Order: sequence, then C-alpha cells, then structure tokens
Amino acid sequence: MELQNDLLLRAARGEDIERYPVWLMRQAGRILPEYRAVRNSLSGFKELVETPELAAEVTIQPVDLLGVDAAIIFSDILVIPEAMGLEYQMIEKRGPYFEKTIKSEADLEKHANTSFDVEDRLGYVKEAIEITVKELNGRVPTIGFAGAPWTIFCYMIEGSGSKTFSKSRKILYTNPTLAHDLLNRITEVTIRYLKMQIKAGADIVQVFDSWAGILGKDQYTEFGLKYLNKIASAINEVPVTLFAKGAYASLPDLALSDCNTLGLDWNMNPMQVREIVGENKTLQGNLDPCALYSSHKEVEELTNNMLNTFKSKRHIVNLGHGVYPDIDPEKVRTFIKTVKNYEIK
Amino acid sequence: MELQNDLLLRAARGEDIERYPVWLMRQAGRILPEYRAVRNSLSGFKELVETPELAAEVTIQPVDLLGVDAAIIFSDILVIPEAMGLEYQMIEKRGPYFEKTIKSEADLEKHANTSFDVEDRLGYVKEAIEITVKELNGRVPTIGFAGAPWTIFCYMIEGSGSKTFSKSRKILYTNPTLAHDLLNRITEVTIRYLKMQIKAGADIVQVFDSWAGILGKDQYTEFGLKYLNKIASAINEVPVTLFAKGAYASLPDLALSDCNTLGLDWNMNPMQVREIVGENKTLQGNLDPCALYSSHKEVEELTNNMLNTFKSKRHIVNLGHGVYPDIDPEKVRTFIKTVKNYEIK
Repeated sequence: MELQNDLLLRAARGEDIERYPVWLMRQAGRILPEYRAVRNSLSGFKELVETPELAAEVTIQPVDLLGVDAAIIFSDILVIPEAMGLEYQMIEKRGPYFEKTIKSEADLEKHANTSFDVEDRLGYVKEAIEITVKELNGRVPTIGFAGAPWTIFCYMIEGSGSKTFSKSRKILYTNPTLAHDLLNRITEVTIRYLKMQIKAGADIVQVFDSWAGILGKDQYTEFGLKYLNKIASAINEVPVTLFAKGAYASLPDLALSDCNTLGLDWNMNPMQVREIVGENKTLQGNLDPCALYSSHKEVEELTNNMLNTFKSKRHIVNLGHGVYPDIDPEKVRTFIKTVKNYEIK
Repeated sequence: MELQNDLLLRAARGEDIERYPVWLMRQAGRILPEYRAVRNSLSGFKELVETPELAAEVTIQPVDLLGVDAAIIFSDILVIPEAMGLEYQMIEKRGPYFEKTIKSEADLEKHANTSFDVEDRLGYVKEAIEITVKELNGRVPTIGFAGAPWTIFCYMIEGSGSKTFSKSRKILYTNPTLAHDLLNRITEVTIRYLKMQIKAGADIVQVFDSWAGILGKDQYTEFGLKYLNKIASAINEVPVTLFAKGAYASLPDLALSDCNTLGLDWNMNPMQVREIVGENKTLQGNLDPCALYSSHKEVEELTNNMLNTFKSKRHIVNLGHGVYPDIDPEKVRTFIKTVKNYEIK
C-alpha cells in the first residue's frame, strides 16, 4: 500500500524530508482517555495485547488524536519470553512478573524453547498489525518492535524488574556459556518474530534495549551489542532502529551496526552523539519526557531547543524515553505541533 | 588518635603509599553472618541504625573479619530527611518508604525543617562514630557519609525508589524555585551533619549521589553538582569523596570540585576517567560487584585487571557499587588479598 506520509521512512533512510517526522514511545497508552476506555473494558493489559482488533484500535488512536507521523503496534516486549515458555503476569502498578525464571541449562529446553512457529504462538501480533495497516489505509507507516536480547534475557533471569540486575549480571561471570546460549535463543526467535511483523505489514522495526546501560562497555559488547548486531544484519526488508538506553560508551560501536537509526535517551547530548556516530545514521529522540510537564510555552521552547541541537536531516523526533502516563495529551499536541512547524534549514 | 594504618587518607590526599588501600561500599552489612546475627536480634534495620553500640559493632566487623583498610559508619542516608521532618520506614525486600512527601512550598516548613540541632536529632550517629573510633583504637580510619542533596531530594519527593523518578524530575521543570529551596535546605543540614561526624571522629567523608545518572548534564549541573560543590567547599577539616553514580557527562566538572576523591561506578572506564579528570584527584573504585560471584581465581584475575587500568597512586580500591548481600565473604577476602598483594609500580 502506498503511504501518503512516509516522512519517517525517508528520514530513517537518510533521504530528503520537508519536515521532521515525529512520534512518541508509548504513544499508544495511558496518556489517552480513549485508550483507558478500551483498557478498562477488559480484564487486564494482556487481554488488550492479545486481542488484535482492540490492539489495532489503540495503535491507531494517537494517529487520529495526536497527529503523530507513525503508528507503533500496541504490544509488549515480553510476548517473546512467553512464547518461549515463560508465562508472565502484568501486575498493576508493579510491572511484569514471571513465576518461573531461567536458572540453569536444564531450564532452557523447557522455558527457552525456540522450536515453535511464531505465527502460531504470536499470531495475535500478526493480526493486530494486519488490521492496523488496513485501517490506517496508507496514512502513516506502522512500526513493529521487539525487546533486545539482553533486555529480554534480564527478564527471563530476574523474573521482574530490578534495581541492580545482579542475577542477570552474575551469570555473565559464572556461566557465560548459559548466557550466550539463552541470548542466541532469544535472538533467533526475535528475528523470526520481527520478520513476521514485517510480513504482516510493519514498515520499520525498532529494537528496545532498555537495560543496555547497566553493563560496562566490554560486557555490553559481548552480551548486548553482538546480538543487536545479529538482528540488525538479519533484517533487510525494512529500516531498523536500535535504542540502547544508557549505552553511551558503546555509541562508536553502535555506529558500525547494520541499522538505519539509533535512538537517543534524554541524557544523551545530540551534538556529541553526532560527532561520535558520524553522518551515516539517523538519530531518533530525545526530549526529556518530563519536559512535557512544563507550560505550553516552555514545551515549545524546550522542543525547539532540542531540535536545534540535532542540526541534521537525519533526525526522527521523539522523546528520550516513553511518555509518562500522567502527561496531559494537550502538552503532547504542543510538542508535535512545534515539531511540525519547525523549519528545516 | 594516631592511626596505625592511614593508607586511605594518604591516598585521598595524593601522598605516597606503599600499597593501595581497599574497602567496600556496604561492607558493614548482610554479607557477614556476624552482621545478620546482630540485625536479627533487633526489630528492624532502623533500630540498628539508631543504637550506637550496635551500629559501632557492625561498623567494626569488616575491619576484624575482612581486613579492610577503613571502617564506614553503619547508618543510612535517609536519616537526614527524617531529621528534617519526613519519617521513613525500611520495608524488608522493598526498600525505604516515606508516608508523606514534599509536594509544595507549604510542605517545606513542616517536612523540610532546617532549624534544629543535628546533635540533638542525629546524636545516635555521633555516638556510634565516637564508639567506633574509640574501639578501633587507631587501627584504620573511620569514614563518615551522607547522601547528596539531589539523591535525598528524590526520596523526599518520590517517597521511595522509582524507575523513572518522574515526580522529582517534573519539579525541576514546573517549580525550579521549590526545587532549589529544598536542595538548599538539604545541603545546609548535610553540611552540619557531616561536620558533626567529623567532630565525632570521622577521618574522611563520602557523599553518595546514587541518582546522579538520571539527569542530563545541564540539569545535573544546576540541581546536582551545584550542591555537591557547596558541600565539598564547606568541608575543609578532612578529605572529601564524591560518588556521583552514572554522571559520566559531568566528570569534567566534578574534576573542578573542591573534593579529594571521585568515586567511579563499575561502568566507568578508569583510563578514560583519568584522562578527563587529570591528576589532581584520587579515583575510587571500581570492580563490578558481580565479579565477586566468580571463582576465586577469576576474582583475583578480574581484580588485577581492574588495578592495572588505574595506573596511578591516586587510587583507593573499592567496588563500583555496594557489595551485593548474597556475595560469599570468602570472595571478598580474595578481592582484598589481591589488592594487598598488588605491587605498585
């Protein structure tokens, strides 16, 4: 289907654009009352993830209601460990929780299974994308996504979020073979999963490495980047975005990866990152999500300041982290309007 | 009292040392069965903090049992907000919890009080240090400490730990005047508190900015560093160590602060930090605490590798984060022995 608005894809490929494309991480979610209405009609978060019609509905909401330049499929990175054999619950106000975790090689066969058909176990994501693409009818591109192997690994080992991630990091020292085995399994399934999303209609895919920043450079190279690179190299059908949150020290290596776009968190300095990364990548980000708590006038100023620091057409505008649930949607509209009015020099 | 082992103080001042001093953040704590025995005889963590004889006992345990080159007083950074009027609970396996938090200017008078005598409200810390110093009898120096204003601010605003610290960061945008007022109050009390610790016998003090890394460079300069610098400048009696975890971007500014030593977290590259910081500061750190999950042989190797990367006499050896509670004390002993056997070139 021909896209009427392909700004995001052109920016990702480094092609000419007349203005910067803009979307927000977590745009399909709790900031919108229309999302909450759908969510509250259901038993829980997972029911929404697993119901393609409704997942597609909330995916499209921010396109209609906020005017973003892309729809990102409503889902969760933890559908992958679940498909591999580790069921999770999403506990209100606490986050994800896995009753079982990976402790040894013996757990891999049972709970880190790779010999399954992704369309079989994750068909609800495929369907949600198909419905989204059909209903969008070419208005904007659809973004598919997955968690990075290192981040998924952390959840499969810890069973939940953590302050120190010491269980996950322990294994890197005590059993690197197990770590690589599990990371390879996650990578393999993730590639198949992303290819399924692309086949279903995703125009671009993003890989989220939320816990990149808890590893030092050498360990991130060995246990993080290596698998991100495998994914980036395996996906040739559409542009790929890598978002390695907090991975400052690895930016020179990320610049060499086979992806189109690098996501920047709100603490990264766009001018410095551009110097490190060079001109061959598009940068995505990176307004501090907390900036949207400011007045409309300040949101406009802060957004313009952020745009000024990028100084390159290879820029996809976003926040530096997912939008926080208590942000006023009107502030998001001001952010988006400011980006759309910004004149590219 | 004359110290028999003043390696830590000499290293902090950049004086000559025959070998590197070594201690561990959180060395007085759950890794030692002897600590757990004392802790379990009491109703809770806070009772231990507030009972000077027992706080002194667990402070000295790692000197006797592990052979570290310094004792750090057993206490908690949250005694400061409590003294200012915000009571906290330490909830087992969850961490600290404040029933009330600072939401507005009106809360400051009630819950961010500064007009009190620190010896009056925090006399138990003074006593614990006095007993520690007396019982150590000059064997090793005693380290006093406090939380950095930015980190204490976060607890007073959030009421607990947080993944995003969005409430704390929100105020920096929506009410910077309130933020600075509260940060000034915390700073003022912290200076008095550290001076009390020094008067009681602390030979060196460390300020922990655990949440430094959640702010971008500009905000950290305005809301973090400014107050760290005030503290470092106000303390002239003993050497000062600043540990701004995750504040990579602010290292050039930290190098200009009026402190003797900068703490490095485990993700910081000591060679790069030395290049940024220059020769005028002692660096403290920074073995990954997870390295202590390895075999004894690997702990020795990893420790030697870490020592090799510092290449300077201005080095106080430590981990890059507090020791994790499930680490085998024998591994800690191997770490310490390796440091003591390391020959300074």
